[in-house]
Amino acid sequence: MTAAAAQASLRSLLHSRDVDTARQWLSAETSSSIAEEFSRLTPSEMAIAFRLLTKERALRVFEFIDPPVQADLLHGLREEETGEMFNSLAPDDQAELLDEMPAKVAARLLEGLPNSRRELVDDLLGYPAESAGRLMVPTPTVLSPRVTREEALEKIQRNAENSRHPDINASHSEIAVIPVTDDTRKLLGTVALSSLVTAPTGTRVEELLHRDKHHVQASEDQEVAARLMQESDMLALPVVDAEERILGLITVDDAMEVLEFEATEDAYRSGGSEPLKEPYLTATVMTLAKKRGIWLIILILAAFLTINVMEIFESTLEAVVVLSVFVPMIIGTGGNAGSQAASSVVRALAVDEVRPSDIFRVIWREVRVGFLLGIFLGALIFPVIFLLYDGRVGATISLSIVAICTWACIVGGVLPLAGRQLGVDPAVFSTPVVSTLVDATGLLIYFSVAGMIMAEQIAAATGG
Amino acid sequence: MTAAAAQASLRSLLHSRDVDTARQWLSAETSSSIAEEFSRLTPSEMAIAFRLLTKERALRVFEFIDPPVQADLLHGLREEETGEMFNSLAPDDQAELLDEMPAKVAARLLEGLPNSRRELVDDLLGYPAESAGRLMVPTPTVLSPRVTREEALEKIQRNAENSRHPDINASHSEIAVIPVTDDTRKLLGTVALSSLVTAPTGTRVEELLHRDKHHVQASEDQEVAARLMQESDMLALPVVDAEERILGLITVDDAMEVLEFEATEDAYRSGGSEPLKEPYLTATVMTLAKKRGIWLIILILAAFLTINVMEIFESTLEAVVVLSVFVPMIIGTGGNAGSQAASSVVRALAVDEVRPSDIFRVIWREVRVGFLLGIFLGALIFPVIFLLYDGRVGATISLSIVAICTWACIVGGVLPLAGRQLGVDPAVFSTPVVSTLVDATGLLIYFSVAGMIMAEQIAAATGG
Repeated sequence: MTAAAAQASLRSLLHSRDVDTARQWLSAETSSSIAEEFSRLTPSEMAIAFRLLTKERALRVFEFIDPPVQADLLHGLREEETGEMFNSLAPDDQAELLDEMPAKVAARLLEGLPNSRRELVDDLLGYPAESAGRLMVPTPTVLSPRVTREEALEKIQRNAENSRHPDINASHSEIAVIPVTDDTRKLLGTVALSSLVTAPTGTRVEELLHRDKHHVQASEDQEVAARLMQESDMLALPVVDAEERILGLITVDDAMEVLEFEATEDAYRSGGSEPLKEPYLTATVMTLAKKRGIWLIILILAAFLTINVMEIFESTLEAVVVLSVFVPMIIGTGGNAGSQAASSVVRALAVDEVRPSDIFRVIWREVRVGFLLGIFLGALIFPVIFLLYDGRVGATISLSIVAICTWACIVGGVLPLAGRQLGVDPAVFSTPVVSTLVDATGLLIYFSVAGMIMAEQIAAATGG
Repeated sequence: MTAAAAQASLRSLLHSRDVDTARQWLSAETSSSIAEEFSRLTPSEMAIAFRLLTKERALRVFEFIDPPVQADLLHGLREEETGEMFNSLAPDDQAELLDEMPAKVAARLLEGLPNSRRELVDDLLGYPAESAGRLMVPTPTVLSPRVTREEALEKIQRNAENSRHPDINASHSEIAVIPVTDDTRKLLGTVALSSLVTAPTGTRVEELLHRDKHHVQASEDQEVAARLMQESDMLALPVVDAEERILGLITVDDAMEVLEFEATEDAYRSGGSEPLKEPYLTATVMTLAKKRGIWLIILILAAFLTINVMEIFESTLEAVVVLSVFVPMIIGTGGNAGSQAASSVVRALAVDEVRPSDIFRVIWREVRVGFLLGIFLGALIFPVIFLLYDGRVGATISLSIVAICTWACIVGGVLPLAGRQLGVDPAVFSTPVVSTLVDATGLLIYFSVAGMIMAEQIAAATGG
């Protein structure tokens, strides 16, 4: 690759119509990084870049692209190209992509598949969206516990040969684990391909069987399946029907994608917006605004509560104007303490370190953490405010900070647990929602503390 | 398992000293869920539960426990038990655990290993912490591209037999991918074990070679390696030295762990605290307070800026007290809009959808999104405030919201990019930091708008 190609981005090469350098750039990059670069292009830029790839390369790049971007790309391609790309995918990826396409296009794509494959994909589409059934690769081979290592390896080789379809690229069906079943296809466990290969000649499958019989039902949520794989370090997770008969396997690359999507969802929710399904740079401005707008509206309406509180204490504010000077700092600190607590509990819930039944343990921890933080911050700012104003103002602010920190930590710790219990995504109760809720109550605490400590001053000012 | 055991938690069973039911509970659960349950116990509770497991089960559970919790558990066990548990781990996990132990204990544990294994672990410890070299499993087998499928399978089986050490549990070295090298051990690519097994008899390794030659240097950051594996759907990633000679493989379960840790780090940072390395329920209250306290101090000191702004406009506030009523809502909305923008850009950076060089694309998107949201929110609240107060107050608030939303989105979008460019974790610039920074500037905007629209009123009040 020339220096020019190495430095330029694919996008700038396409814009400068420097086709040769763009082709050089593409041939030097790996398929997965080309796919990633595509998520930064508009659909028409993608179609141009795609045509610069060799056919084999194009198929491989297509596999690495996320379904929503795949759908965008297909719009820009000719019908034959579309069919070719679609047929190259694994059945679970085909099912996912069909979900993103208009019904008419989806029907045409499905029709272009060989009969046996079409049935497979149809079966997958029968499972609810986001279920483990949708994510699985139907399993081609199962083993009996009684066969030997050699018989097993031969069977795997034979089945692969029979199921190899000339039209369909099978590079992504790398199965590292094989289900072991009884004669009725009921799951007994799994055997790792590596333990089969490395076992001494003549070993029986039952001697290599994984004792921990992890599996999920086809109707189970994809996130549950992916977490289970992550926790149990499995390379493939068996999916079974209600009678525990094997249906297929979830591969680790699909599980990683689910976990990445969940992490994205949590990241957006913790910033107070709905998750974006497309890459940030290719989503339209309107889409970005919609995903954020919903929560901004809810939060600004909730913020009217703070107006009520401020109005209740308007005469106090009029009497001692200096109190309003500290309002932004008071509510900021409450919001920050609350969002710290919320984000740690949301994360602990996500990785199953904490459950709703731990609510009292969480409250007791947060009371102590919040009080400790409040005492520390209060002691830190008291001398500063004492010097700038006076002791009464200093005491009001410091004591308010102690009370608000404690309260904010409790609210931040409890809300995600309550959310989980009520079936609401706990991440919704991260930062912005918690701080908006703590704002109004924090002001109540602040003005109550002020009312006690500065009672004389307030009375004098209102009286005069 | 009896109904009592199914409903109870391990912790409550240990507390009620119901050893039989606890043992039943343990035998019914999988090793990975027992390991997860352990992260909810204190070190002494863990030691009790651990002794209720059969020896084989204990070894397997131990493998699933996170290194910091492993270290806690080892403190509570006898020396022989400690050695046994340690020896059962894979070399990369041993290196990771040694990092968590006091130097004296680490030296004793290392001494207990067989010679060949001790050298391996020593090699791994030579790589910097959090590097790819620390994470890899030294590779036992490499293949030449010229050998046939049968020769390759035989070599893998033979090597496994030779390296099998009776004292060391090898259940976790499930290698699904084998590096292919030239005669100088220079990496040519990889071959999936599944494609070897399923290939027709007589196929040569070079025909099955993966064309995309993904790999990392041993000194590379673990997160980079893990992301590369995720993007390229690989079951194992080759690690090489400066001459591109193979050193080992990173397995997908280790990569998933790294990604999970990164997700935890981002979750804590986005809530404005330092990440916790232990489980939430077992960390001490002091640890929790420390991780959060650092950022709370920085943020409360930054909040003194808002005090300055409020003081500058104190006479305005005195003149038109109603302006202070809206302060919490104004700064809350700015903070929320800013944190939405920050969290989407932080996430896009994390998955490499956006790079610092995209700064102008990001600013242009955020200007439009922020303006659109501001117009919408402003139009939504104008009639409410018009009815409650009057047209001037309504116009002041609505126009301020438009300007602040636009400004907050720009700040939220730009800061994470600047952070990445400066080598600071972009997640640090999520919610609390962005909203604290937007608070003071937002107030400036608000009072300036008020000064323009309500000039007469302010002059009248200050004049009188």
